[in-house]
Amino acid sequence: MAGSNGPSLAKGASIIVFSNDFDKVFAAFVLANGAAASGKPAVMFFTFWGLSVLRKQPGKRIHKSAVEKMFGAMLPKDMDHLGLSKMRMGGMGKRMMRKRMRAKQVAQLRAMYEDAKRQGVRFIACQMSMDVMGLTKEELLDGVEVGGVGTYMQAASSSDVNLFI
Amino acid sequence: MAGSNGPSLAKGASIIVFSNDFDKVFAAFVLANGAAASGKPAVMFFTFWGLSVLRKQPGKRIHKSAVEKMFGAMLPKDMDHLGLSKMRMGGMGKRMMRKRMRAKQVAQLRAMYEDAKRQGVRFIACQMSMDVMGLTKEELLDGVEVGGVGTYMQAASSSDVNLFI
Amino acid sequence: MAGSNGPSLAKGASIIVFSNDFDKVFAAFVLANGAAASGKPAVMFFTFWGLSVLRKQPGKRIHKSAVEKMFGAMLPKDMDHLGLSKMRMGGMGKRMMRKRMRAKQVAQLRAMYEDAKRQGVRFIACQMSMDVMGLTKEELLDGVEVGGVGTYMQAASSSDVNLFI
Repeated sequence: MAGSNGPSLAKGASIIVFSNDFDKVFAAFVLANGAAASGKPAVMFFTFWGLSVLRKQPGKRIHKSAVEKMFGAMLPKDMDHLGLSKMRMGGMGKRMMRKRMRAKQVAQLRAMYEDAKRQGVRFIACQMSMDVMGLTKEELLDGVEVGGVGTYMQAASSSDVNLFI
Repeated sequence: MAGSNGPSLAKGASIIVFSNDFDKVFAAFVLANGAAASGKPAVMFFTFWGLSVLRKQPGKRIHKSAVEKMFGAMLPKDMDHLGLSKMRMGGMGKRMMRKRMRAKQVAQLRAMYEDAKRQGVRFIACQMSMDVMGLTKEELLDGVEVGGVGTYMQAASSSDVNLFI
Repeated sequence: MAGSNGPSLAKGASIIVFSNDFDKVFAAFVLANGAAASGKPAVMFFTFWGLSVLRKQPGKRIHKSAVEKMFGAMLPKDMDHLGLSKMRMGGMGKRMMRKRMRAKQVAQLRAMYEDAKRQGVRFIACQMSMDVMGLTKEELLDGVEVGGVGTYMQAASSSDVNLFI
């Protein structure tokens, strides 16, 4: 897997995670980890609903407006609480999916995230989306960078695999 | 922002706008404008549901078949009438989102579009989708080009950031 | 269309088909065929819900667990049974769409697939998704390759148009 086969693998991969559907976020992590394993620097740029993936429960109380609280309450509270994009069936689809994943020894989402961190995948949270959703940096996982579309364009321009998920 | 830092920013960005969800279309414009601001020629290729974004109210009556009228009635009538992909809540989600955007001084969709035009972003409407949806060029915003998948491939091949939204 | 205009068209196109929505899968085939027609080697990588597209009715009975049978029953049984992502209206939206496509002489999905095959488009099924969904190679269309994220990264790195649909 240590990808020195050809110059193209030296260019990076950038993935915009727009969705917070469990299945799509899962695919995003598989791709980011796969890129890193092939020797490609990988960046995940979390925007809009995708920000949910990076949420952690903050240690101290953060002052929020009513609308910010509402957004906070309606979005999945972290990556362990995402739902499927299809076949939801009141959560049963996802339970079935996770059970199958365990049976087939496919890593769970949080393990994929830990793996991505270990492999040096960069996580960038979209500043504009954080403003709109009322999320602060201290509510996001440690090690997450905050950036804008300019940050993304820089990363995407030095990547040859750019995806919007 | 005037991106002369490295050769990669000279290559373009091409964005297929397949969706007509407010949030996804918004992201597409942020990305196209961000690309243009970094000095990358940007092209937005509108296909399928995404065509709704380019609709304008035509000056004169256009003769349509019953099915074409039906499509016309069921699609959002222009970019000011798109709905969210999630958290719809009978339109409340979107009102909340727009209110937050105003509060945080994030530009509205139509302003983003005007900005894109000013920055020279190209808008291409997919011919095949127009045929299927029964939309004519005179029903689309001024300055929109009409093209096919060949037009897209040309643009995408001279871009290093290609996204499907 | 025979694309010898510029070096960039020699690089390939890779398309991840994650969705099994009729409209999105249709767009994926239009793009893959368009790439191939412009002289770009094209690869379609089917993962998650997208695997439905590659299903065929297997000749002999395959032994499955209860959960595998359940997945099998809930997923569209082949590419002729996909639904629209929007405007479903109990299947009416899709019937309307297909009728329009016929009227406008737009090729149907299966014809697009046959065309892609003839043009040498590669079809790769994601191994991990097959495991999770309980699908075996003999349940997939003939000529489909099976591969992992490494296979995808190789293809994507030698492509300049990479899309996630």
